[in-house]
Amino acid sequence: MSTASTDTRYDQAAILADEHVPMIHIWRDFSGTPEQLFRAHTDRDLFARWIGPDSREAVIDRWDASEGGSFRFLDRAEGGDEQAFHGCFHTVRPDRIVQTFTWEGMPDGVALETLTFEDLGDGRTRLHAQSLCDSFEDRDAWLRSGMEVGVNDGYAEIDRMLADGSL
Amino acid sequence: MSTASTDTRYDQAAILADEHVPMIHIWRDFSGTPEQLFRAHTDRDLFARWIGPDSREAVIDRWDASEGGSFRFLDRAEGGDEQAFHGCFHTVRPDRIVQTFTWEGMPDGVALETLTFEDLGDGRTRLHAQSLCDSFEDRDAWLRSGMEVGVNDGYAEIDRMLADGSL
Repeated sequence: MSTASTDTRYDQAAILADEHVPMIHIWRDFSGTPEQLFRAHTDRDLFARWIGPDSREAVIDRWDASEGGSFRFLDRAEGGDEQAFHGCFHTVRPDRIVQTFTWEGMPDGVALETLTFEDLGDGRTRLHAQSLCDSFEDRDAWLRSGMEVGVNDGYAEIDRMLADGSL
Repeated sequence: MSTASTDTRYDQAAILADEHVPMIHIWRDFSGTPEQLFRAHTDRDLFARWIGPDSREAVIDRWDASEGGSFRFLDRAEGGDEQAFHGCFHTVRPDRIVQTFTWEGMPDGVALETLTFEDLGDGRTRLHAQSLCDSFEDRDAWLRSGMEVGVNDGYAEIDRMLADGSL
């Protein structure tokens, strides 16, 4: 499973385990341009607004979304729980971002993430995010982690930001 | 195949395809400490001395071997052929380096490389390098690329640098 169906619309995120390699695929369509989706993923303040679940606040600790740059952000719940994530940016192009990603609760676990922004030709853009892990066990642990809450809440916030002109 | 045999000595590099995931494993033992191996992989001038085949010269274009840093180097043959490689450093610890790696001849191909330095307890250190690719096709293309020449020449140069005190 490495290509999306051309007939399907992904108004909600499709989160799928690859059949062959230890990878997670996410597809999601947005009512915006590839440039707007690229900005949502590379602008520090815009990224902080949408990333993660609605119940938590993202605080950017380090941010340089350029090739060879890096990032770190904190994800804080009201009750005080704080999780941290960091990585480096390997590729930053308008149609493609490649970055590493670690949840610091499991510091030796690293995923290689590739995001592409495909112009669907009708003012809509399809985001494909793939996360490659070292093992199927690590990949399956991510899938069982409740990640879909952050994915769905975050992308719904991008929808709102596209609608209200923030992007 | 993700762990090395405890009985085997790797005086020559063992380059093996993982059975389960699109990964290449390399094991190689050196007559040196983990600290020396770490220096060989993080010091700009030392790295330039050993990386790649004997028939080619490495020229460092960009080098910041720290977490969130990045690198780019050129690999030049006497006849004029030049290949370029780049990536970013996700983790840089004395026992572990995680970095991305791209050969610019295939700019969208990215491997996630994890190097560990295991103290064998007798003045020797075992290097384990794993390279995770997006697909088995990409992994197998690396294995068919003649990569073993650069690996074997480079590690033999590290042997010489350990023997002559350069490391």
